[in-house]
Amino acid sequence: MTGRLYGIGVGPGDPELMTMKAARLIAMIPVLAYPAPDGGASLARAIAAPFIPPGRTELALAIPIRPGPAPAGAYEAAAALLAEPLAAGRDVAVLCEGDPLFYGSFIYLMERLADRFPVTVVPGVNSLSACAAAAQLPLARRDGTLTVLPATLNDDKLRALLNGTGAAAILKVGRHAPRLKALLAAMGVADRGAVLVEHASRGGQRVTPLADWQGEAPYFSAVLIPPADKETAP
Amino acid sequence: MTGRLYGIGVGPGDPELMTMKAARLIAMIPVLAYPAPDGGASLARAIAAPFIPPGRTELALAIPIRPGPAPAGAYEAAAALLAEPLAAGRDVAVLCEGDPLFYGSFIYLMERLADRFPVTVVPGVNSLSACAAAAQLPLARRDGTLTVLPATLNDDKLRALLNGTGAAAILKVGRHAPRLKALLAAMGVADRGAVLVEHASRGGQRVTPLADWQGEAPYFSAVLIPPADKETAP
Repeated sequence: MTGRLYGIGVGPGDPELMTMKAARLIAMIPVLAYPAPDGGASLARAIAAPFIPPGRTELALAIPIRPGPAPAGAYEAAAALLAEPLAAGRDVAVLCEGDPLFYGSFIYLMERLADRFPVTVVPGVNSLSACAAAAQLPLARRDGTLTVLPATLNDDKLRALLNGTGAAAILKVGRHAPRLKALLAAMGVADRGAVLVEHASRGGQRVTPLADWQGEAPYFSAVLIPPADKETAP
Repeated sequence: MTGRLYGIGVGPGDPELMTMKAARLIAMIPVLAYPAPDGGASLARAIAAPFIPPGRTELALAIPIRPGPAPAGAYEAAAALLAEPLAAGRDVAVLCEGDPLFYGSFIYLMERLADRFPVTVVPGVNSLSACAAAAQLPLARRDGTLTVLPATLNDDKLRALLNGTGAAAILKVGRHAPRLKALLAAMGVADRGAVLVEHASRGGQRVTPLADWQGEAPYFSAVLIPPADKETAP
């Protein structure tokens, strides 16, 4: 009997936005793992901290929080670290900021382990929902569409994806903020009420009209472009 | 002093996927409202039921669960019903299936009431995250994009939106399932491992390869088209 691999979404930052299922499983599962890039603090662990019993086995994984450039072999090494207790029959929970399968590095661990161990994914509140709640703006409405895209794409790709679309959300804004602001202004999209949301649901949460934003933004920020169609009644 | 309007996401169906914040507020706020179309049962209320104290004032709103065709004046009437206790200084929570601002009818109530009353939105786990967890498929990865669109769009619009995009999720599948299946097969997209997920996180949850699906689907179903790019390592 092997253990089961759990990917547990702990939500966007406010520990109270964890689901009850996440809290119950974190209190039960004997081995807890989490991305702790560069040996530093783990955001996912910080969110879950109030629910982690003392004396639990913990595995800090040297992988990025979100999939992206990582040292060669980082995901293989992390998967091998998880495989040890799993092979010995112990359940392992990987704590994931937001939702495990929405731009989460859990995807890369699951793909390396699912052929050998049973997997359960516990969905969490993603960062976009937290941004929308902070800004009190709809993400998508009625028969509209929502395009989610990372700010890391180049201008041509961003323009093609945003051209003529409905609502959009741009993640990983960070240092791309000035370029995004200029691009969206040139496209006339900023006029639709685009906002930049920093640290949604965390300390330091702030919503700023994109037109008023100056300079770079924190990594944990997103730009929301609300649906163009303001029609509401039936 | 007026009351505060809360839009509370109760998640995709499993009551344990409610956030702790939602459970705490539902136990505290004196007036609870929810969409109960056609005077029938309310899904959001059913999800939250284990956390609703006895004797709470409840308002059943005659509006659809998701924004869409509704009797003329339905949202105005619902907003007026909520405005009464709010004007009298009582807080009101609207229970919302999934996330309040992701295709939720709360959007239409908020837009009618936010000029008169303070609003707090509590984000919830949306149905897409529950579908991805059920299917153990990524919604979006790395520098990829995610396009969310309703199956109610016509073939030309669907084709334009899905052509050349990365990952996609199609909501409100229901009776559109056969048309979607044919369209995605003709586009070669179904080969990428598209699945149809019914009743994610509820009783009756089921994941079926789209290529094997026959006939119409339940209203609470979605088609997930995973990211094309299977590359994983850093």
